[in-house]
Formats: sequence, structure tokens, C-alpha cells
Amino acid sequence: MSVAILSLGTELVRGELVNGNARWLAEAVSDEGLEVSEIACVGDHPAQIVETLARLGHKQRFIVCTGGLGPTTDDVTTAAAAEVLGKPLVLDAHSLERIKQRFQRFGRSMEASNQKQALFPEGARVLDNLDGTAPGFAIRIGEADAYFLPGVPHEMRLMFESYVRPALASTQVSFVHQVRLNTFGRREAAINDMLDGIENEFGVELGYRAHFPEIQVKVLARAASAQPARALAEHAALAVEERLGSELVFSRGEETLPQAVGRLLEKESLLLGLAESCTGGLCAELFTRHAGASQHFAGAVVCYADQVKQRTLGVPGELLAAHGAVSQPVAEAMARGVCQALGVRLGLAITGIAGPSGATPEKPVGLVHLALCHDNSIFHAEHVFPGERWQVQWRAAFTGLSMLRQRLLETAGAQD
Amino acid sequence: MSVAILSLGTELVRGELVNGNARWLAEAVSDEGLEVSEIACVGDHPAQIVETLARLGHKQRFIVCTGGLGPTTDDVTTAAAAEVLGKPLVLDAHSLERIKQRFQRFGRSMEASNQKQALFPEGARVLDNLDGTAPGFAIRIGEADAYFLPGVPHEMRLMFESYVRPALASTQVSFVHQVRLNTFGRREAAINDMLDGIENEFGVELGYRAHFPEIQVKVLARAASAQPARALAEHAALAVEERLGSELVFSRGEETLPQAVGRLLEKESLLLGLAESCTGGLCAELFTRHAGASQHFAGAVVCYADQVKQRTLGVPGELLAAHGAVSQPVAEAMARGVCQALGVRLGLAITGIAGPSGATPEKPVGLVHLALCHDNSIFHAEHVFPGERWQVQWRAAFTGLSMLRQRLLETAGAQD
Repeated sequence: MSVAILSLGTELVRGELVNGNARWLAEAVSDEGLEVSEIACVGDHPAQIVETLARLGHKQRFIVCTGGLGPTTDDVTTAAAAEVLGKPLVLDAHSLERIKQRFQRFGRSMEASNQKQALFPEGARVLDNLDGTAPGFAIRIGEADAYFLPGVPHEMRLMFESYVRPALASTQVSFVHQVRLNTFGRREAAINDMLDGIENEFGVELGYRAHFPEIQVKVLARAASAQPARALAEHAALAVEERLGSELVFSRGEETLPQAVGRLLEKESLLLGLAESCTGGLCAELFTRHAGASQHFAGAVVCYADQVKQRTLGVPGELLAAHGAVSQPVAEAMARGVCQALGVRLGLAITGIAGPSGATPEKPVGLVHLALCHDNSIFHAEHVFPGERWQVQWRAAFTGLSMLRQRLLETAGAQD
Repeated sequence: MSVAILSLGTELVRGELVNGNARWLAEAVSDEGLEVSEIACVGDHPAQIVETLARLGHKQRFIVCTGGLGPTTDDVTTAAAAEVLGKPLVLDAHSLERIKQRFQRFGRSMEASNQKQALFPEGARVLDNLDGTAPGFAIRIGEADAYFLPGVPHEMRLMFESYVRPALASTQVSFVHQVRLNTFGRREAAINDMLDGIENEFGVELGYRAHFPEIQVKVLARAASAQPARALAEHAALAVEERLGSELVFSRGEETLPQAVGRLLEKESLLLGLAESCTGGLCAELFTRHAGASQHFAGAVVCYADQVKQRTLGVPGELLAAHGAVSQPVAEAMARGVCQALGVRLGLAITGIAGPSGATPEKPVGLVHLALCHDNSIFHAEHVFPGERWQVQWRAAFTGLSMLRQRLLETAGAQD
């Protein structure tokens, strides 16, 4: 029972765009317990699309095709699908009406070229676009159920969830449930070793995805109906969490590390302040990507130059001279200083050598000092991170967030 | 004269990884003036690899294949290539020696499994790996010259440049030279309109790549030899720059906008300070991604909470109360305040409503006030940016950097 993904668009074969749609679809299909046997990508050439659809129709059970459903002349997917099947294009009155209404809603009148988007190969099932102009369609090509979706990512995703995922699931003899655990702090191979035996013990499948610097662990369970699959996945996920511990597993599903930290900060009614040297604002940016960050994040001092460490954070010049900017005393002074400068009770400081230059005989590239100031308590950690500049910066930021998370879990635990 | 890209790896068809190699290769091939007719991607299954190679060998002039050259049992690319050709695998003594030496250099002895990496289909030309263990190889499959490269991105890129790009170029009847101009501030369609006629006037091809929030413009020229192609591309690129103006075109080639701004700051011996509210550290992070930022970047105050705007930047509470945090007077006070707080002569302030919440009847989502303080001069700009939260943040950061760049160009111009 295999699935092919077909991405259409000249911008893809020219390398103007990375094929994020295919990555997303491949993961979504795999999450349903089905195998993607091929991802194909061709430009907006009718003959090539016809040839590729015919070839995939011979071998696959499903084809998920994206792109080329727009109003312009280089959007040729629908015509190519009709040609493969030797069928005419017919106008769908319902779709035409929906497209017209959509234009009216935005105070514009429909252009003649948009009428093309209401044409479908005879016999196709029309798939309403839930958040855009171009409808999709489904039709049998050879042995395959072929789904044609627009290339705009959020429209494609919505339509996959509404039309394709249920169809994939209904062909399965078993029900599938998956739990995703997000971890930080160990390599994929180490996580894999720590979870040795779980698959046999619980009868589940474990999958891993490296999303630097995180490792995501997926626990996939199959059963004859939905509820037992869910129960099995949840049961095994608990065992995985227990093996890895709360230091590694920071959240489930879509929750990011700054969101998980933010949730704990809000529970404690704390506002965080950051003092960032080598991470240069990355850590602050990770928090403020998310709407609602103002509930737990006050701000940051990016103290890239030593003059800012002194002037804005009040780090004594003698401390910098005696120990250097990348040292425990300076990290601790930064953490205390940012609490003072921003007027918060909790401050995280990060100072290090991101590289590639800046190393000394005593201090290698990748050396990072972290300090946490919480009311009158101070905590320190020292690491040497491997990798390129950006990897050191991301590892330092995530390590700081993890340190913060541990502290907040301990505080909450002590209160219980 | 068409080229196929074949990406091998089960992690790709499972969606665990986005296919960045294929994007890079597609762009590199297109930059040579050749057409990529197909990007194919299959898992580590010998039968599927054999079938795909045979199919592509019928139709293509070149195949560039990446992945599956490692030492483990799931690396099956070389064996599959031999099978397509009906040839045995033979040991290459030179490669075996190189692999052994590489392990020795890192103080380890070669594992038995690595010997596999010195096996090649009989008749293959071995391609030394210039920065890793797995060598590649080139061999004729059907009508195609097929190149097999490792999947590790930096190894793949190095080997493409050394072995594949020259082979592609040598088949060209004409020489190709390309100049890339990086722009920010207008949409792709508007840039396209502004450059209407350039292609005919100069006999070049223009290409566009949207790399949000930038639009890259590529000027590609062909001629019978290298020097005229270069001269033509440079000549046309100057005309493109003149049409678009220095407000839009911020750099050439790989130079990013913060790097271009950094270069101008260093010329003026200025250190920059940032006051970021709605961009939450993004702008600082864009500077500090690059090594050497300390030469022009002092630091930032991420004043996400109003208490930080008051306490750290000295924005008067009455100003916040009277005008709100997203207003010209507050942006200007932030810009002055960050110069004072960090001890710098040049400060850029950004305050806005990134959304999705936070709008008022007078202030829509996307409203951003920017202010620049340079010694005793102050400059202000106001925008309403479209898009989602992250897009508003990126547009605000880039607009701030552009504003800074214009000011620095004017300052330099006034001194000339």
C-alpha cells in the first residue's frame, strides 16, 4: 500500500524554493503508518506531468499531487490530468459560484482567467478549497487514487487534513495513533540506546526526527480500533518519558521549548529577563516568535560588547579584566545585572565563544558559561559545545532554556 | 540537454528531513544555464533505485545522485548502480588507502564496514571525497553521465563544484556568467515590472528568487567565451542596479543585509545599538549570526515589556500613557534611550504590533514605528506591514536595517 508525492512547479526544479510541501506530506503520510515510495518533482510542462502521472498510476495506491492549479497559463496540472485519462475538461458550476463569491467577499470581481479554476476532468470529485481560490479534485489514475491539491502550503495542509488523511486512514486494516515527545540534550543515537526494548515490550514503533537542536521521538501504535491504539501509544509514551526523564523530554506535540518554559513561568507568575552575549538575541527571538510572550517574557539585554556588559548590566570592569567575558564570575554578574536593569526576579545569562575565532589556549571555541539568578539564588553551568557558530549559538540558547525549565520544575516541586 | 537530480534516503521519503540538497543542486544546475527536468527521491530500496536509475538513464543527459554511500547496510546506492549496469563491484586500492589514512589522522582504526566504501561498479571513475570518508563515482548509465555524491551537504557541495559543475559547463556551447543582486523593499512582480525590457536590451536572462523578505535578482549572460559573458552580465547588472536604485539593491552575491550594513558601519567607525520591541531580538540575532559582528554591533535592549522601555531605556511613563508603546514619540525616545543605555552614537528602535492580537481601532496589526538616532539627529518612519506575525517581524527588522543603510549611504555621500 504505497503512496507517491508529486510536486509540480518550475520554481522547484529551478531551485528557487525548497520543497517544504513534500517534506510535510511525507511526514503526514508516514504518521498514518503508510509508506511513501517516491517523491517526484517536475516543472510546469504538460508532457512531463502526463508521463509522470501515468507512470505513478501503474505502481501506486495513492498519488498526492500539489501545485499548478492557479489561474495563469503556466498552471497546467488539471489539463494534464485530463489528458492522462483521455477525458474532457468540464465546468463545475458549484466551484465557479464559490470562486465568484470569494472575489466578491474581498470587494473584487472575478477575472476571466479564474474561470479555468472551475474546470475539472470529467468524473473527478471536486474538493472545495477551504481557505483559498483554487479547488482541488480527486480522480482514479490507473491503480491509484490521485488527489490534486493547491501548492499554497496552508491551503494544501487544510485540504490534506480534510480529504486525503481520512482516505488514507480508511484503507488501513488497523488504526494508528501517534504521540510525539520533544527532547533536548542527547544525540539521536543515545536516545535510541536509552529506549532499547520499548518497541518489543509495548508492541509499538519508535521513530526519530532530528530538528536541530531537538530530537523528536514518535511513538506509533496500531490496533483494530481507535481507542486501543490511543491507549497503547499513550502507555508506551509514558514509559518513554520515564526512561528519558524530565530533563530530556520538555514537551509533547507542537509545543516548543520556549513555550514549555513560558507555561512554567506563568504558573509561577514570573517575568523572565535575559542577558545574551554569544547568543546575540537568539534566545529572546525564540520567546517572541510566539504570540502571548508578554505574559512571561520582559525583555533582554544583548550585551555583545563588553562596554554594554559594564554600562547596562553593571558587570565590574575588574571582573572582566581578571576572568574574561567568558567566565563563571561574569556570567553570574550578568544574571544579577539583568534582574536589576530590567526590574525582574528571574534572569538568565549566556556568555561564550561561538567561533570560529575568539578562542584562547585556555578557552576553546564552543565554551559557554550560563548563569541563572532567581531572587537571591544563583546557579551556574559550563559547557563546551561542538559544531559551527550557529550550532554553538542554538545549543547554548537551548541549554539555557533547559536549565531554566529544570529550575522552574524544582521550584514547583518544592511547593507541592 | 537535461539534468535529473536523484536524492536517495529513507529519511527523506519519511519526511524526517527537508530535501535541501536537491534545492541547492537544482539552483546550481540552473545557474549553469541547464534545465533540471526532474527531481526524484526514493528510499534506500535497491529495486527502486535500480528502476529509477534505469528510467532516468533513458531520458537524461546528466544524473546527479546523492546519498546512500555510507558504510552501513542501508547504504545501497553503489550496489544498485552496479546492478543497473550488470557490472561487478571492484575494490579501488587508492580509495581504500585514503579511507584508512583518514581514520588514522583522527587516531582511530578503520572499521571493516568502511571497506565497502572503496567498492565501485567496474569501469566507474572514482571521485575523491575532499572533506569526508565516502568517495563518489561517475559512470555512464544509458544516455546519461551519472554522478554519485555523498549526502552530507558540505561534502556534496564541494564535490559538485570540483567534478560536476566543470562537466556541465564543458557540454555548453556557450559560456555562462551570472551576477546576483539582493533587493528588499518591493514585491517580485513590481521588481519584474521595473526591469521590463532589460532582457531584450542586453540579451541576458533575468531570474528571480524570493528568499523572504528579500527578492534576489539573477542576471545570466551567455557568450562564446568566458570574458564576454562576464562583461555582458556585469554591464546588464549595472543597468539593473540603476533601474532599481540603491534603496532596493543592498548587496551582490552572498552578502546579507546585516553584513552590508555592518560594512558601512565599520567604514564610519560606528557601533550600533538596537532597541527592539515587536521584533523581540530578531534584528540583533541577524547581526550576530555573522562572525566579526563585534566590529560594528554593540548590543541591544529587547524592551518587550513597557517596564523595560521605562526602566532600561528611560522612556517617560507619561509618553507611554499619552501615545501608547507603538507611536512615533515612543520610538524616538527608545532610539535616544538606547544610545544612552549602551553608550553608542547610533541607535535604531523598532516598536509595533506583530499580531495576531494587540490591535486597536486606531492601530492595526502590522503597524510599526521605526526611529533612528544618530548623534543629535533623529529620523522616523511608520509602516503597516501585511502578513502573519513572523512576516511582520521580519519585514520590520529588514525595514529598520534598510533605513540604517540609507542613512549611512547619505552620511558617506555628504563626506565625499
